[in-house]
Amino acid sequence: MSSGGPIGEVGELGVLADLRRVFGELASQEPSYLGIGDDAALLPVPGADRQLVATVDALVEGVHFERRYAPARLVGRKALAVNLSDVAAMGGIPRYALCALLAPPDLSLSWVHEFAQGFGDRAREFGVRIVGGNLSRGPCFAATVTVLGEVERGRAVTRDGGRPGDRLYVTGTLGASALGMALLRDEGPRPSPEVQEALTRAHLDPTPRLAEGRLAAGFARAMIDLSDGLVADLGHLCRASGCGAEVQAARLPWPREAEALATALWGSGAQAALTGGEDYELLCAVPEAQAQAFELAVGREGLSFQAVGRLTAGPGIEVVFEDGRREAARAQAFEHFR
Amino acid sequence: MSSGGPIGEVGELGVLADLRRVFGELASQEPSYLGIGDDAALLPVPGADRQLVATVDALVEGVHFERRYAPARLVGRKALAVNLSDVAAMGGIPRYALCALLAPPDLSLSWVHEFAQGFGDRAREFGVRIVGGNLSRGPCFAATVTVLGEVERGRAVTRDGGRPGDRLYVTGTLGASALGMALLRDEGPRPSPEVQEALTRAHLDPTPRLAEGRLAAGFARAMIDLSDGLVADLGHLCRASGCGAEVQAARLPWPREAEALATALWGSGAQAALTGGEDYELLCAVPEAQAQAFELAVGREGLSFQAVGRLTAGPGIEVVFEDGRREAARAQAFEHFR
Repeated sequence: MSSGGPIGEVGELGVLADLRRVFGELASQEPSYLGIGDDAALLPVPGADRQLVATVDALVEGVHFERRYAPARLVGRKALAVNLSDVAAMGGIPRYALCALLAPPDLSLSWVHEFAQGFGDRAREFGVRIVGGNLSRGPCFAATVTVLGEVERGRAVTRDGGRPGDRLYVTGTLGASALGMALLRDEGPRPSPEVQEALTRAHLDPTPRLAEGRLAAGFARAMIDLSDGLVADLGHLCRASGCGAEVQAARLPWPREAEALATALWGSGAQAALTGGEDYELLCAVPEAQAQAFELAVGREGLSFQAVGRLTAGPGIEVVFEDGRREAARAQAFEHFR
Repeated sequence: MSSGGPIGEVGELGVLADLRRVFGELASQEPSYLGIGDDAALLPVPGADRQLVATVDALVEGVHFERRYAPARLVGRKALAVNLSDVAAMGGIPRYALCALLAPPDLSLSWVHEFAQGFGDRAREFGVRIVGGNLSRGPCFAATVTVLGEVERGRAVTRDGGRPGDRLYVTGTLGASALGMALLRDEGPRPSPEVQEALTRAHLDPTPRLAEGRLAAGFARAMIDLSDGLVADLGHLCRASGCGAEVQAARLPWPREAEALATALWGSGAQAALTGGEDYELLCAVPEAQAQAFELAVGREGLSFQAVGRLTAGPGIEVVFEDGRREAARAQAFEHFR
């Protein structure tokens, strides 16, 4: 462990030296590869049968997390994970990351150190090289991360390929992250300690669904990751694809063990799944004719996708309840500036 | 022109819509290319005889500039330019940019709009596509920009290839940016209005030396861009190359018309050139045997490099004055956290 002193005392070079130690072989230099330490990274380019995938996303203190409840190591893991989720949603393979940090001078070096450890853990886990970055003073901590990846030409899945009749599938559990965030902010009735732990973990340490994205890319014709909430992100996919959608409320995978909390905060578990954001699960649209082969492949790979509805001619997104009642879906996207 | 209201009233979607309009065809979608609007950009990959160049840099309000003196359009131009300068220093060609913004809710949309116009102007000028970005609330305005480019395999110039005896060349004028920043911050005696304009322009709107970097890549065996000041950046190059250096004070290209200001602030014009940062000029080390051919090629292309010294066996960087006096160079790198 490194010093717990404020980075204002350690200085920029001290912080950079610590980051270099933490990233270790993830940032090492190789003949065909040049990482941290020159003006820019030089990266081997995959063959011309590949496309480059590039995405950028930021985690900002006071907006996306608070230091009082978010351990630095998990902030580091999430800063990379949310970008890996974007690569997953294209059906791509992540290769390189650049990590640009803002930090206030009174932040402790140990906080930055643990952030870097978490970031490095996720990089190691998914075979990502840390090839560049930037460090600047700022009024709060913020990590702006760029991830570069690759995808075989013709395999990438965008948002705009969906057609009426396509089946909609999601990975994982929806709404858990939003419920976890509510607990971290002391809202709502508390479930059991185990359930609290699972929900806050879903919020603080989401799992990027890279294997799921690679598999779905062989079958889906539209895909998106769920960062703004199912209704909002399905809305993005529908608009891009020129479709509507219907979602079966009873099929939504929300955390059943947190029903009281979900009901107190969102009216129902299904509404938590429809509205809660930051799940970083995948949503994809698979043509009916491919659905059986897709489900077989999912089972063979030991992965998990839940069918939750289908695309329609539209317009709009409807939620269908078990009693046959239909309702226009309500989105409440997170609005950064209001 | 768009509304001057605070972005807190316009909302995230309003800001994004405005950015899309400003970037126009720079962000347009093509069959083999997917830009803003999906989870990640999909980019055509140059042939495998190329390497990818990737760099990230941030401009932060209150650290790198103040809104009271830096027009939004110039902040936008500079946010891209400082990254293009890094690509230039590798001998590369910039291709794509991703622009991640933090913005406080009370910032006016017209400020963001003009930032985007400046960013787009520089992108257009250098043939760079804007392929992604991110927008988040934050306590100040900050732009974290990633630029991707390409370079022919074997042509890239890193910092570590310099050898004793190599001639050192720089582009442009050194120290002008630091003198311009001092004027913007009301420090030092004021030169004539024309000189003030030239110096503040050097600080607010630096020119990335892409043509110079491409040309130098055919001759130089080490190169770096001057962001921290000549002594500091030459120090980086020397450490990476395992060399020392000597710099001829009389050959340093500092702004002669600002001698009184330079002397008041730095003791001499030469010291302003040695110490002042943010010039975003290039420094390269050319083998003696290549120097004549390099200078001929520079003249033929209508470009300009000034010979300022040479690499030595070292250790350290010495400044040689006209009277033969030698002094160890003093660096005063900008320290972010002190």
